Amino acid sequence: MATIDVCLSPELLPLYHLEGKLVIVVDILRATSCMVTAIAHGVDHIIPFDNLEECAGMKAQGYLTAAERDGKQVEGFDFGNSPFTFMNPEVEGKKIAVTTTNGTACIKKSEGAKEIGIGSFLNLRAVAAYIRTTKSDVVIACSAWKGKPNAEDTLFAGVLIELLPEFEPESDNCLLALTLWKAAKENPVGFINETTHVKRLHKLGITDDIEFCMKQDVYPIMLLIKEGQIQKA
Amino acid sequence: MATIDVCLSPELLPLYHLEGKLVIVVDILRATSCMVTAIAHGVDHIIPFDNLEECAGMKAQGYLTAAERDGKQVEGFDFGNSPFTFMNPEVEGKKIAVTTTNGTACIKKSEGAKEIGIGSFLNLRAVAAYIRTTKSDVVIACSAWKGKPNAEDTLFAGVLIELLPEFEPESDNCLLALTLWKAAKENPVGFINETTHVKRLHKLGITDDIEFCMKQDVYPIMLLIKEGQIQKA
Repeated sequence: MATIDVCLSPELLPLYHLEGKLVIVVDILRATSCMVTAIAHGVDHIIPFDNLEECAGMKAQGYLTAAERDGKQVEGFDFGNSPFTFMNPEVEGKKIAVTTTNGTACIKKSEGAKEIGIGSFLNLRAVAAYIRTTKSDVVIACSAWKGKPNAEDTLFAGVLIELLPEFEPESDNCLLALTLWKAAKENPVGFINETTHVKRLHKLGITDDIEFCMKQDVYPIMLLIKEGQIQKA
Repeated sequence: MATIDVCLSPELLPLYHLEGKLVIVVDILRATSCMVTAIAHGVDHIIPFDNLEECAGMKAQGYLTAAERDGKQVEGFDFGNSPFTFMNPEVEGKKIAVTTTNGTACIKKSEGAKEIGIGSFLNLRAVAAYIRTTKSDVVIACSAWKGKPNAEDTLFAGVLIELLPEFEPESDNCLLALTLWKAAKENPVGFINETTHVKRLHKLGITDDIEFCMKQDVYPIMLLIKEGQIQKA
């Protein structure tokens, strides 16, 4: 029986044995939700970067650039971290270089896995279906907030575990995530509106993004990282 | 208003600013439960050690020694990690040197805090009362299992948060812990019997310990670490 596990923070990823496994990176607010939205709107591929300089440098190679730090768009970049900005015919066929506070760092720390996929509520059941097909051992890697576990990524891990009862939970983190999801599932937006991270975003005037990022199955696509590029599976 | 936060793994403690704060170290199964039991039965003080050699060396200074690795007592030590072994008139007035897989490491990583206390279900309300008196900002430091968050320590954090509504939650980890506790509180033993860590202990024949370690308020004492020694507050 294949196993499933949850890693609540990128800081804990070194404790997980990723070799031979499928890692699903999740940063609900908002990096992976944006990636799914962008590819669904015709972006050819996305390359994640740790730092602003390298990301900005990709302009010279014809890339659009997107950068977020502490919830805000960084000056000099084409995009920030709002999914709505990628719902734009101008992105069709384009390549995007992206860097965010938590999500891209989590992708970097997942290197060493057999395969890395991108998860969000927006493509939830496509992710679950892909996992079922591969039958690989899976680790859901939450991007967290500056290393500290957060509610929305943990909720996503919980619903994925609920959708995959045929996978054997590997640690108590699965129970943590599933219990949180069961407490939130009747009203996930209401639930996360009470969290510290979402209150932080609300202070920045970010509310529509949150509601959108919690919607399930808006885009039935699976994304994988192939040779460093995030693209449709 | 003083704040409360939860750190789900010692690996994440470097992300928390412990200066000026009260840290409550918790390792329900079983290090901190044993410490509370031992002091309640008259042990003068306990010194925690990272490694077996240093711990064993304390025999020369008249200490009894206790060592656990992977759930099992280590050969050559007076005690393992079962609370029942400390319910013994022979420990009265004695000093104990202890090392365990997770709990003592968590204590070491909490150095830098203003004050370090020892928490368990066995002294739950004494811990809550002490926190209320100090009015300090508090971090509940879960010892976890080899770095991965576990259910029983997270549950303890949850009940402590429930008992301290006057403290402001600092991160989503408080919500995670409180939600887990609310799901488990009707039957905490039944809840943790389903977890991976407890199943691991059951395989080693450890069942009475678990039921005992989940009992609330058996010993109404608060323990603090003073000059490296764990003793009654």
